[in-house]
Amino acid sequence: MHTSPMKLITIVAEEVLEQHLVRDLDAAGATGWTITTAHGQGSRGLRAGASGGGNIRIEAVVSDEVAESMLERLAEHWFPHYAVVTWVENVQVVRGEKYR
Amino acid sequence: MHTSPMKLITIVAEEVLEQHLVRDLDAAGATGWTITTAHGQGSRGLRAGASGGGNIRIEAVVSDEVAESMLERLAEHWFPHYAVVTWVENVQVVRGEKYR
Amino acid sequence: MHTSPMKLITIVAEEVLEQHLVRDLDAAGATGWTITTAHGQGSRGLRAGASGGGNIRIEAVVSDEVAESMLERLAEHWFPHYAVVTWVENVQVVRGEKYR
Repeated sequence: MHTSPMKLITIVAEEVLEQHLVRDLDAAGATGWTITTAHGQGSRGLRAGASGGGNIRIEAVVSDEVAESMLERLAEHWFPHYAVVTWVENVQVVRGEKYR
Repeated sequence: MHTSPMKLITIVAEEVLEQHLVRDLDAAGATGWTITTAHGQGSRGLRAGASGGGNIRIEAVVSDEVAESMLERLAEHWFPHYAVVTWVENVQVVRGEKYR
Repeated sequence: MHTSPMKLITIVAEEVLEQHLVRDLDAAGATGWTITTAHGQGSRGLRAGASGGGNIRIEAVVSDEVAESMLERLAEHWFPHYAVVTWVENVQVVRGEKYR
């Protein structure tokens, strides 16, 4: 089956940031995202929610350009003051035009 | 440690499809899968469950052939009429023979 | 934006192993991890929790060396007697020094 290369961006952050991060994803050009609730820890405390609440894990399949734009938004808005962890992977999708 | 290349296929869909998708994975030859509950949205409504219920996120480590067979089943059964999002990645596993 | 290559290691196991696996991750050198609750099945029973409880899905962004060390710990402590599934992927992160 024909597949197209895309990026999968995953963001783990405090629950209180959910709507902010979704707004950034939308503004960056993502067409959809999946959110799961999570908890986490870090030996250096990196991932513990400062608010004592839980974490969320947001993932979105996006183009290279949207992934880059989202990383820039994260670096500008959230990395400096919040415990936000993010990573980007190469994935293959069917019907790549749905993500553009 | 010796690792083998496999595919990780992830499927996000409405909760009501869980048993159907699991049956397809089993028929395609997957030997196991992990399911988490999720919610999601899309600027074009792609990921909103039409039923108003939640979403599920199913992932399975499979061979290239099983991934291909599952994509064909998704395209035949679910892509035309349901909000199903799927992606495939390259992963490395220990004890690759367990997934065949 | 500048990104660095890292490994993402994902571990799916019975809930009762959570603290043990987290201790292994910490000992292997991981600086953080994200945990979601999951359920799963396998046509060969591989993923059903023997205890009847749920599963957890732990993921951590780590260096190659930490991924290798964690695989060795899993192989030594858990693979022989527990239903533990794990996979490793290549990811790109911003601020790679945070994971070392």
